[in-house]
Amino acid sequence: MRKKPESDPDLIAQAAQLAMLLEVSASPKAGNVDRCHDYPDTRYEDFLASSVAVYPVFRKAALKDTGVGKLIFEAVEASKRWHTGGNTHFGAFILLIPLVMAGGVQDLAKEIVRGTGWQDAIDFYRAFAIAGVRVGKVNDLNLGSQESLDRIREEKITLFDIFKISSSYDSVSAEWVYGFERSFKYARIVGTNVREYGMNDGIVMTFMQLLAEYPDTFIAMKSGNETALDISATASKLACEFDLDKIRSFDEELIERGINPGATADMIIASIFIALIKGWL
Amino acid sequence: MRKKPESDPDLIAQAAQLAMLLEVSASPKAGNVDRCHDYPDTRYEDFLASSVAVYPVFRKAALKDTGVGKLIFEAVEASKRWHTGGNTHFGAFILLIPLVMAGGVQDLAKEIVRGTGWQDAIDFYRAFAIAGVRVGKVNDLNLGSQESLDRIREEKITLFDIFKISSSYDSVSAEWVYGFERSFKYARIVGTNVREYGMNDGIVMTFMQLLAEYPDTFIAMKSGNETALDISATASKLACEFDLDKIRSFDEELIERGINPGATADMIIASIFIALIKGWL
Repeated sequence: MRKKPESDPDLIAQAAQLAMLLEVSASPKAGNVDRCHDYPDTRYEDFLASSVAVYPVFRKAALKDTGVGKLIFEAVEASKRWHTGGNTHFGAFILLIPLVMAGGVQDLAKEIVRGTGWQDAIDFYRAFAIAGVRVGKVNDLNLGSQESLDRIREEKITLFDIFKISSSYDSVSAEWVYGFERSFKYARIVGTNVREYGMNDGIVMTFMQLLAEYPDTFIAMKSGNETALDISATASKLACEFDLDKIRSFDEELIERGINPGATADMIIASIFIALIKGWL
Repeated sequence: MRKKPESDPDLIAQAAQLAMLLEVSASPKAGNVDRCHDYPDTRYEDFLASSVAVYPVFRKAALKDTGVGKLIFEAVEASKRWHTGGNTHFGAFILLIPLVMAGGVQDLAKEIVRGTGWQDAIDFYRAFAIAGVRVGKVNDLNLGSQESLDRIREEKITLFDIFKISSSYDSVSAEWVYGFERSFKYARIVGTNVREYGMNDGIVMTFMQLLAEYPDTFIAMKSGNETALDISATASKLACEFDLDKIRSFDEELIERGINPGATADMIIASIFIALIKGWL
């Protein structure tokens, strides 16, 4: 393609958008919306619309023309304007916005998240408030209360500070704190898997491996640590066998039980984005 | 949404992109790639990549910063750069580019196609040459030969002139010549159907109705008029019954026989775009 892909804002935004589309399309993706099934309140088409909605925000992010927190807010706002299916990509935006700003360069992404300020934290809380995420609160800075916003301002608590707290129980926050290590690791893995199994099955395989290696923190928050560990144990077995029919049954079981490995899906999107930018897909 | 949606280049480009994604995702879409099956050489993911690839060209088209023929060429070129699945959206681009330039306003779109010049014709032939369309030639101006290009220049044959010739056997060209009548008619129909049946099934229903009403010219070119008429007769019956299982069997039959109602799919994309811009979806 081009010599310096990371300097073309359209190319970066397109890679981020395609990552979102490839992730939601990959099927069977255990416990998540995919091209073959919806949730009761969130359809596959809501994810398509969200991916379309956010493009101008990604382009802005690639041009680095405003702060991380504000861009996350704008991404969520755009997504919500284009569909009525509730939260589709909040966690994905938290990962993608700094990665897009950094053009997929890991050191730059680290610098960007470490350089966030208290205004980013305020904007992030505004984003969280409208995102429709189905967990109660983000850490002890109780969500969106005037009190917590005042405290952020007074103590100049940055968004990175906040994610340091939540990194212990949320793998998306942990990616910020630990320099996107897992996202970059799985970017290589998804590249290898796609070459071996093709686009759809390669992404499915990567999803199962990531879920096997790191218990999903979104499951842990909603259904407890025990459940998250159980799911990962099963995922580990299924990733080794890699029998799509068995993965399909596992998918059905998770949906029936209302168990959603949402954090794993968010991280797969980040990994696909990196793999696309690096030319590994 | 906004007061003058047709004046925001991003919003127009997004509507065109979402139209492409919703069309290819709608399933079962008889004889075409959809979210549930690929062709041997063209995958669902190639259509996703093509939809992502073309965004910057749509944005340029919405800003009207170059000619129709050149934009069609750039759209095809961008699409080909992002996947290796052969032709995905050539017919769709022929319809979408002038509609996007016109912001979805029918009279403007008519003016734009009637205002094309011989340079647009040259650019269109360049686009056709790289598009990988599986029909032999476009009318008697034998495709891409130096002779035909010289004749276009000398006789100042416009792209609209060329489409006047091909309109007799190609419904996409006919849309240009007859002022996008069917696209706008089916934009209303898809709006009504989506309200009644939901997004996926509403688009499937509209596809069957369009195929029933107008025999697909891409089928006619490849498999003859008789076949095209037969397919429309069956589509008519299936659209009345609207039994998704029967449509699924019809889909399988068409794929097995290598019959592809590609022109119908292109026109559905144009109709979805118009419906999105008008706020009917």
